[in-house]
Amino acid sequence: MDSFTPTGRSTVKRLPKRGEYGREGVYQILDEGLVCHVGFVVEGQPFVIPTGYARSGDTLYIHGAQASRMLRTLRDGVEICVTVTLVDGMVMARSAFHHSMNYRSVVVFGRAAVVEETSEKWEALRALTEHLAPGRWSEVRQPTEGEMRATLVLALALTEASAKVRTGPPVDDEEDYELPVWAGVVPLHLAAGVPINDPRLPQGIEPPPHVSNYTRGARR
Amino acid sequence: MDSFTPTGRSTVKRLPKRGEYGREGVYQILDEGLVCHVGFVVEGQPFVIPTGYARSGDTLYIHGAQASRMLRTLRDGVEICVTVTLVDGMVMARSAFHHSMNYRSVVVFGRAAVVEETSEKWEALRALTEHLAPGRWSEVRQPTEGEMRATLVLALALTEASAKVRTGPPVDDEEDYELPVWAGVVPLHLAAGVPINDPRLPQGIEPPPHVSNYTRGARR
Repeated sequence: MDSFTPTGRSTVKRLPKRGEYGREGVYQILDEGLVCHVGFVVEGQPFVIPTGYARSGDTLYIHGAQASRMLRTLRDGVEICVTVTLVDGMVMARSAFHHSMNYRSVVVFGRAAVVEETSEKWEALRALTEHLAPGRWSEVRQPTEGEMRATLVLALALTEASAKVRTGPPVDDEEDYELPVWAGVVPLHLAAGVPINDPRLPQGIEPPPHVSNYTRGARR
Repeated sequence: MDSFTPTGRSTVKRLPKRGEYGREGVYQILDEGLVCHVGFVVEGQPFVIPTGYARSGDTLYIHGAQASRMLRTLRDGVEICVTVTLVDGMVMARSAFHHSMNYRSVVVFGRAAVVEETSEKWEALRALTEHLAPGRWSEVRQPTEGEMRATLVLALALTEASAKVRTGPPVDDEEDYELPVWAGVVPLHLAAGVPINDPRLPQGIEPPPHVSNYTRGARR
């Protein structure tokens, strides 16, 4: 796949060696994340709101109720910044100063547009459900016309984006390596626990494989 | 503990029953999170950048290199929005429409200020290290004067904040409860793996308990 062209706002300025602009790497991070943080401005005031999302092709979709304040602001086509962050580990150095995190993050800039066309809206809702758990969409009751109307779907073209990634062990000052201090990385990942049946689930309905074998990090 | 007074920007508008303004609940979420997303505006453009943080008393601290573009913007006292989100589970309903997430999030508004005073700066760096892993600060080499100078610490008073929380099973349309579809919650949490020794760690240095017994969710 090709790469994003770094722009003034998407170029990784601090520690530029951690910046990545390849589309494939950016999409892997977007596909693994569950929640994005959407930044937008209302009368000079920044807001940062977490929400679900999904990628389909070169488009990122978010959705919500027609009444959502955030979506009503975004649908006007204001500039937004959407950030997805995966926390991969704590980097434990020999000095407090060199402690860090291993992470993979993506920042996307642009203006969202309302998805009006029914077939694209349907595809977005499919992608949003499948993003939670691949295989889910075909097992559940799909949206009615009324639910489609009640849902606002916004599309953000993935044209201006960058990733920032830190991996590997701590980097200590040379003279600190002889200190008798444990150093290394504590890996972190989003882990799934045992599924909790809905209290009203009839007896005899077992979790399907996309639930009982759920993993998030496997796609990385 | 007391509560935050909801303001125009901190009031949870969408699904207000999920809003929480108690200081204790807000602080539990801040103390469990590892990464915050900082929103700020430069020439009308929103930016959302992930970074580490820590709470000490009624103050939230972030830090970084003096050269950081984000911190240089924030130190001017612009309005910011800091959001921390914990993902607790996927809510799998019988209909695509009612899928959701269980989560706890906090949004803080205000203007950051540079921490100039040495003892407060020291306390902030202690809190930032302890926030990663309680017990770490006293085991590692603490900051030198040069490292203190190279680090920019910003303080954000916790005066305007709110939490938003979703818990529990899916809420389906009444007629969907008889569908033969598994429904429930897949719990999610940030899990620690087996610590990875630094490649240059001398033989015989074992991970301390704050590393080998690391858990994040236990404080909730």
